[in-house]
Amino acid sequence: MTKIIRVDMETKEITQEDAGKYNRYGGRAFIARFLTDEVDPTCEPLGIHNKLIFCTGLLGGTLLSSSGRLSVGGKSPLTQGIKEANAGGTAGNDLARHNIRAVIIERLPAADDRNSYVLVISDEGIRLEAMNELEYLGVRDTFKTLRARFGEKAGVICNGPTGERLMRGAGVAVAAPRGEMRFAARGGMGAVMGSKRLKAIVIVPAKISKVEYFDKAAFNEAAKDFHQMLIDAMPTIKKSNQTYGTSGMFKIVNELGLCPTRNFTLGAFDFHTEIGGEKLVELIRARGGDGKTGQSCMNGCMIKCLSVFPDENGNAICSTLQYENLSLLGSNLCLGSLDSIAHLNDKVNDLGQDAIEIGAALGVAAEAGLAEFGNEESFMKLLAEVEAATPLGRVIGNGVKITGEVLGINDLPMTKGQAMPAYDPRALKGNGVTFAMNPMGADHTMGNLYGARATMPPLATEGQGDLSRKTQLQMAGLETTGFCIFVRSYLFKKPELFPRFIYGICGDKMTVEEFWEQGHETARLEYEFNVKAGIAPSQDKLPEYMYRIPLPPNNSVFDLSDAEMQKGVLR
Amino acid sequence: MTKIIRVDMETKEITQEDAGKYNRYGGRAFIARFLTDEVDPTCEPLGIHNKLIFCTGLLGGTLLSSSGRLSVGGKSPLTQGIKEANAGGTAGNDLARHNIRAVIIERLPAADDRNSYVLVISDEGIRLEAMNELEYLGVRDTFKTLRARFGEKAGVICNGPTGERLMRGAGVAVAAPRGEMRFAARGGMGAVMGSKRLKAIVIVPAKISKVEYFDKAAFNEAAKDFHQMLIDAMPTIKKSNQTYGTSGMFKIVNELGLCPTRNFTLGAFDFHTEIGGEKLVELIRARGGDGKTGQSCMNGCMIKCLSVFPDENGNAICSTLQYENLSLLGSNLCLGSLDSIAHLNDKVNDLGQDAIEIGAALGVAAEAGLAEFGNEESFMKLLAEVEAATPLGRVIGNGVKITGEVLGINDLPMTKGQAMPAYDPRALKGNGVTFAMNPMGADHTMGNLYGARATMPPLATEGQGDLSRKTQLQMAGLETTGFCIFVRSYLFKKPELFPRFIYGICGDKMTVEEFWEQGHETARLEYEFNVKAGIAPSQDKLPEYMYRIPLPPNNSVFDLSDAEMQKGVLR
Repeated sequence: MTKIIRVDMETKEITQEDAGKYNRYGGRAFIARFLTDEVDPTCEPLGIHNKLIFCTGLLGGTLLSSSGRLSVGGKSPLTQGIKEANAGGTAGNDLARHNIRAVIIERLPAADDRNSYVLVISDEGIRLEAMNELEYLGVRDTFKTLRARFGEKAGVICNGPTGERLMRGAGVAVAAPRGEMRFAARGGMGAVMGSKRLKAIVIVPAKISKVEYFDKAAFNEAAKDFHQMLIDAMPTIKKSNQTYGTSGMFKIVNELGLCPTRNFTLGAFDFHTEIGGEKLVELIRARGGDGKTGQSCMNGCMIKCLSVFPDENGNAICSTLQYENLSLLGSNLCLGSLDSIAHLNDKVNDLGQDAIEIGAALGVAAEAGLAEFGNEESFMKLLAEVEAATPLGRVIGNGVKITGEVLGINDLPMTKGQAMPAYDPRALKGNGVTFAMNPMGADHTMGNLYGARATMPPLATEGQGDLSRKTQLQMAGLETTGFCIFVRSYLFKKPELFPRFIYGICGDKMTVEEFWEQGHETARLEYEFNVKAGIAPSQDKLPEYMYRIPLPPNNSVFDLSDAEMQKGVLR
Repeated sequence: MTKIIRVDMETKEITQEDAGKYNRYGGRAFIARFLTDEVDPTCEPLGIHNKLIFCTGLLGGTLLSSSGRLSVGGKSPLTQGIKEANAGGTAGNDLARHNIRAVIIERLPAADDRNSYVLVISDEGIRLEAMNELEYLGVRDTFKTLRARFGEKAGVICNGPTGERLMRGAGVAVAAPRGEMRFAARGGMGAVMGSKRLKAIVIVPAKISKVEYFDKAAFNEAAKDFHQMLIDAMPTIKKSNQTYGTSGMFKIVNELGLCPTRNFTLGAFDFHTEIGGEKLVELIRARGGDGKTGQSCMNGCMIKCLSVFPDENGNAICSTLQYENLSLLGSNLCLGSLDSIAHLNDKVNDLGQDAIEIGAALGVAAEAGLAEFGNEESFMKLLAEVEAATPLGRVIGNGVKITGEVLGINDLPMTKGQAMPAYDPRALKGNGVTFAMNPMGADHTMGNLYGARATMPPLATEGQGDLSRKTQLQMAGLETTGFCIFVRSYLFKKPELFPRFIYGICGDKMTVEEFWEQGHETARLEYEFNVKAGIAPSQDKLPEYMYRIPLPPNNSVFDLSDAEMQKGVLR
């Protein structure tokens, strides 16, 4: 049976236990159940009663492509509700290969304990070590320092300096194979990690995988079928994911007029060709050097969406410029240059910030006159303030809600206190349902209707609630497995693979319907947590200005009825 | 019948209507019912759907001593729940004498309408006037300008510059007879007023009072009995209220160890004799000049708690240094000089800030290293930042919650996002129940158990819930009348006066029990509003650190059981 590791930051005691009833659950399913059982929904997110969970999906550590994502969960200091955020990188698989399903960080160090702690997991055991030389170190150098000490193959999960400083826009960084930075970005889990004074978790890979299978032959059969699907789709995967990641979306999103531009006041950006996927790939290829596309961030992943964007001399700036980054740090700030976006994104990553959250916060800061739309330098200056942790920098590093509240801007692109991803709900109404009703706050990965635009017109006012609900339920299932969202379309075409994987790994027999129902139960538990925390149903809503102020070029407002919205609740 | 005035800030339309079913209600009772009927509890407090209510008590405009308080209500941007705050000054009586029970400010000016509006009420009618010369003007000069134009007897309600800038620590100022500043301080109602772009309301006194009585003879009989009580008590009133206001409490509070000191980390202040009531009165008398005690802030008030503190040359600095001011802006910042406190308080008043909220925020800022405890200049510098509306100043002007969140301080003296008044619940446990359970957030006027210390030991762990409940219910009744808290003890000894007053003014016949039940119903409606807003019961709690970190000199933590706390809910 897989293990749960508990670390008490007050006593520094580390304990191990069998996963027990949690053995059947990974990712969001694990986190929803564990928090429901052990954490008071009304607790202070950065206080002694919150617990920070790092856990693998149910299928982590196996050879299944794209299944090794790491989930990070707890009560969010941004939404005040339940939170699961997940990331690629190697740590999810590394943990699973030690047969660890989850690491739970509990309580707080005493007030006078100002050490920075690193949890080291290896075949030799698990220990907590003070490494104060890492305090306030950027993510890049933290990765470097820890990989230099524990080996280049060590899995690393770390907090950036903004999370250590308890800024609510901070995510948790996970290292990809060559030290690129991935993020469990959303919901301020970096601030929770900072409150526990845990700077990093290092996982020295197990010499021999300890992943346990209930029926390995059955598992391998299912894996073979899954991998064959990916092989069959490889021409498409190569053309799309391996070339562009999600950056290729930019052109269509812009045509549809739903691309956040100039602090969510416009839906299309004049210079979109300068920052879209085609331009991105053209520059990566032309500049060469460190520039790369088609890399994997988890061992064995066949999707390989990771790219590295180089400067004019071919030196790596940043990895990976996905659509969200290009929009929130690009069009939303009216920056029409990939170099500008890469500079910002590199700094944002090194600070350990969620690019969506801080991109939205920077847009609001520009609206308040503290930066100039279109002027890279003015935004880099604000990021320097975040890095220096000045009062203004701390404001911005705390995300879009606090930035707006402090600077006197009321119209804020967020739900439940969390910044909106790069789909303005006024022009993609189904995502408005998802953003308002899902338990995590504005989050496209909770049920993105962009992909359904051929059958569900983005501006339609009916049917969006049901489709959002359906999509949210699918994601609630998928996110228990450890699978990346990029294999979603393949798996959803053949959902009978899920029960086969699950049977093979832990012996649970279930139908496809029961698999989806388990996802639904996860979402129900999350909703219940939020009800007790006070943020549902009171905050199941979009910002009021999106109902009033039309978004060019469609000049549409958000106008779904309350009844339509309610269809999207996963009670 | 009394009138309700509605002002639509979008269309600038002003309408009048009979108070109708609301005619029976004043103050908190009016606000709870009106908000329940007309405002969505989930609305954005600074958005178009919130309504800002100015209303009189049921007995406003009569000759009853101390009954002319003005209530200000709406959804609070600080607590996110229902809010009623009230103030002395002349405006409550002035409105009532025009037979106006309430002025309701609705919707928002268009985004491109950047005027500062003044609502002018006189015998000639009611009009909205743009007076942009008042924009961002301090409260003192706003009072001066408006009284110069509309007469020295004009009632003035105004917003300070921090409210205009939407800072959530802003209250609403009301002018006393000689232009002294009173405040409906709590809950950020100044920010709501700022969102409506209403700078002030001026009430040119009615030449002849239009107050309507159902049975004036009966009313006068009851009034006579009430005033006789006050006359009988006059020796005590003169010795206490007219001399010290509440400042005389300082010594005992300090002895009991419940006086917030050094950002609520201590319960007693070494230099308490330097800033207590005795020293205050000694200096006022010795310095002479503008210095005064025993003034009234409402016409006809026999309590006369208003004092003016002068500088060494006898020039007025500030009015009135009550206990809350002395503690939050004094001991809480380790300032052991009345001159220091007066300088801070004067600036705080002129900025239109709630002294409790900003006092707590300044304490947290000092904890974060941005000011030095005990150093007046360092705090005056922070107030200069608030005045200049720098990012740091905006942080502090937004109150203790945002200040802590931005500066990375987790242990915050607040409940429901509102700063605690000057009674640390670890050493006056009954007030912990009130602060946690009452619908308005931390607020001593909602049910203060300090006065009951002779019969209910401050550190006792039983009986506090019931007593808090009883006291909260009494206040819920009292605060519908317009009576000041300073006549509470007299009225509660003879509660049969309430039904007599009410019958005399509006013809409602009720028993004393029915009067209290009406207060209970008010509290129930407030609680229901908060449930829908998501802040009850999820936020019916004290900060977690008060359960963990002992408070010297008692070295007590807050340790009432959840069951004891629940007794204090007014469902």
